[in-house]
Amino acid sequence: MSNVLVVYATDYGSTKKMAEVIAAGAQDEGAVVVVKAAEEATAEDFLAADAVVFGSPVHMGGPDWRIKKLIDTVTSGLWMKDALSGRVGAIFATGSNFGGAGGGAELTMLSMMNNLAELGMVLVPFPKHTPGYRDGGLQWGAYAQTHDKDMQPQGANEAQLAAARHHGANIAKVAALTAGKLSFAK
Amino acid sequence: MSNVLVVYATDYGSTKKMAEVIAAGAQDEGAVVVVKAAEEATAEDFLAADAVVFGSPVHMGGPDWRIKKLIDTVTSGLWMKDALSGRVGAIFATGSNFGGAGGGAELTMLSMMNNLAELGMVLVPFPKHTPGYRDGGLQWGAYAQTHDKDMQPQGANEAQLAAARHHGANIAKVAALTAGKLSFAK
Amino acid sequence: MSNVLVVYATDYGSTKKMAEVIAAGAQDEGAVVVVKAAEEATAEDFLAADAVVFGSPVHMGGPDWRIKKLIDTVTSGLWMKDALSGRVGAIFATGSNFGGAGGGAELTMLSMMNNLAELGMVLVPFPKHTPGYRDGGLQWGAYAQTHDKDMQPQGANEAQLAAARHHGANIAKVAALTAGKLSFAK
Amino acid sequence: MSNVLVVYATDYGSTKKMAEVIAAGAQDEGAVVVVKAAEEATAEDFLAADAVVFGSPVHMGGPDWRIKKLIDTVTSGLWMKDALSGRVGAIFATGSNFGGAGGGAELTMLSMMNNLAELGMVLVPFPKHTPGYRDGGLQWGAYAQTHDKDMQPQGANEAQLAAARHHGANIAKVAALTAGKLSFAK
Repeated sequence: MSNVLVVYATDYGSTKKMAEVIAAGAQDEGAVVVVKAAEEATAEDFLAADAVVFGSPVHMGGPDWRIKKLIDTVTSGLWMKDALSGRVGAIFATGSNFGGAGGGAELTMLSMMNNLAELGMVLVPFPKHTPGYRDGGLQWGAYAQTHDKDMQPQGANEAQLAAARHHGANIAKVAALTAGKLSFAK
Repeated sequence: MSNVLVVYATDYGSTKKMAEVIAAGAQDEGAVVVVKAAEEATAEDFLAADAVVFGSPVHMGGPDWRIKKLIDTVTSGLWMKDALSGRVGAIFATGSNFGGAGGGAELTMLSMMNNLAELGMVLVPFPKHTPGYRDGGLQWGAYAQTHDKDMQPQGANEAQLAAARHHGANIAKVAALTAGKLSFAK
Repeated sequence: MSNVLVVYATDYGSTKKMAEVIAAGAQDEGAVVVVKAAEEATAEDFLAADAVVFGSPVHMGGPDWRIKKLIDTVTSGLWMKDALSGRVGAIFATGSNFGGAGGGAELTMLSMMNNLAELGMVLVPFPKHTPGYRDGGLQWGAYAQTHDKDMQPQGANEAQLAAARHHGANIAKVAALTAGKLSFAK
Repeated sequence: MSNVLVVYATDYGSTKKMAEVIAAGAQDEGAVVVVKAAEEATAEDFLAADAVVFGSPVHMGGPDWRIKKLIDTVTSGLWMKDALSGRVGAIFATGSNFGGAGGGAELTMLSMMNNLAELGMVLVPFPKHTPGYRDGGLQWGAYAQTHDKDMQPQGANEAQLAAARHHGANIAKVAALTAGKLSFAK
């Protein structure tokens, strides 16, 4: 069993929905999951988690500023203390199909994964054999086109939600194998 | 007037086709354009160019190794001599719609743009108001989904080719304004 | 002549100092420069600028959240209108020498450059022949190690300030050549 | 116990030396390690490994083209078959202190990590509390400044070699916990 924290920023609810589906996937693997908006997550939430998942809409090619504020003002203190080293990290994002090339999803994902790496966390990828991958992601994490080619809202489709759920399950699997057992060199 | 060099790697011809369309767009703006496969481009080709455009299929999330070999073995010597400083650089890519999130297009583009930045080149973006953008690119450059969601070949569509052509025109516009006039601090 | 806007986030004043030095470099080339903290910059400031420079300390491997808040809440509206397309963009950063490998400077720079590319701006690199480069930057922009290997404050050194000043001059040179003359395809 | 494969490209031997030190660190944790030059690594080498480590000098801001050729021509086939999903991946790099900002180390590391993520591998970070980190790395992996601020060779120093060795140990620890036990959703 492991504890998973899913932290998201959301504008209209689509990213929150993805967070909840990832949480359900982690629960499928026996994890106890807490889902929090970025504005509400605390240092204690992170300290209680074996795995942390960040999720954000793509805004101007990067994560929502509320995610970055959380990282700068809350997790930076945990970084100073190496408090999350050896735990598990993963990410997901939402965006539009405008341009047909991800619309900045990759750098958005990397920006969040970057923070998890700084925290010393083992990073869970998004393997291409994941059910739903064809419609819902790239190597760094699950991705739902919640807006279409004309930037109009359409919500995540079934395949994208399935992909996100399996991503949550994968994260819980890694956490279950490593929780409390991984102590990196000091 | 300006001289533009377009260098590409191609497997089945789609990226070569995109290179030719970008060349046509640059010619629309009065540029003299040379199009070369990565295996054939020489230091002299680069030295004769006011603007350089790199294009590649997305392979395992990065540029084709032939592009990187060219950069390591040919342009690195020009970097040592600062020979291309103040000229113009831009990029494009091709890939599949598998995953619906760009499939690694962004890091592929950045890897190429990175090399152009190292060479001291002014970088031309791909503005969202470009005709065809809706189907063909992200902020770093033009992108054609030459393969579909199942990784089957489909070639670039009309919108993607239009986007690429306008990208070529934009590149030539920047080159026309700056060619021979931009001397960075030494 | 051109108008340059330099926008920074600062904690202890080092990044502000870098912003002022970049401004001085742009003035050396005849630019009229406005320097603003991220919290104070307005849409009007951006609209009045031929070139925009973003600068930030490296925080957890990315830009300060105040820079991202500005981008999400102010420049995103300009992106919707394509209001800054064809103008000039550049970036700089500050950080520590902890690790000896940039400490996250590159992704921090790319995150900011990313936003400028989204806005359709021509991007100014940081050529390796820039005076002071040996101590003060990488291909994407000027960088000052304002903190040492033990994360203790030391301020930017003379070489780093010289590099930043020349970066400002380079930015103004590109702006002078292109201001009001560059209209990308629509 | 786990099997670790370390694959490197090297010009003058410094990156090979780092590869050997990382191998020694993995052996410290009981791993059986194979070290191979990129030109010599085969699909069988990858299939026999529970963990794969890529290492490269920074060349023009990216990995050596021989690493990319290996990825495009050897591991791409394993990606098609999802043959390495659920295994462990990590990276390291070497470069110069020219510029004092990593000299392109971060994108070089990300380019390699990117390929490992595509393969569906769990990624091992480089925690800041690692002995030697102060001189030898960033969040993505170990890094040795084998060349100085003037790009002259100096080899990896003791702290950097220690950091690399501990990175190897960390990689083996993750592999030991997960080898043969991690089956991602299909």
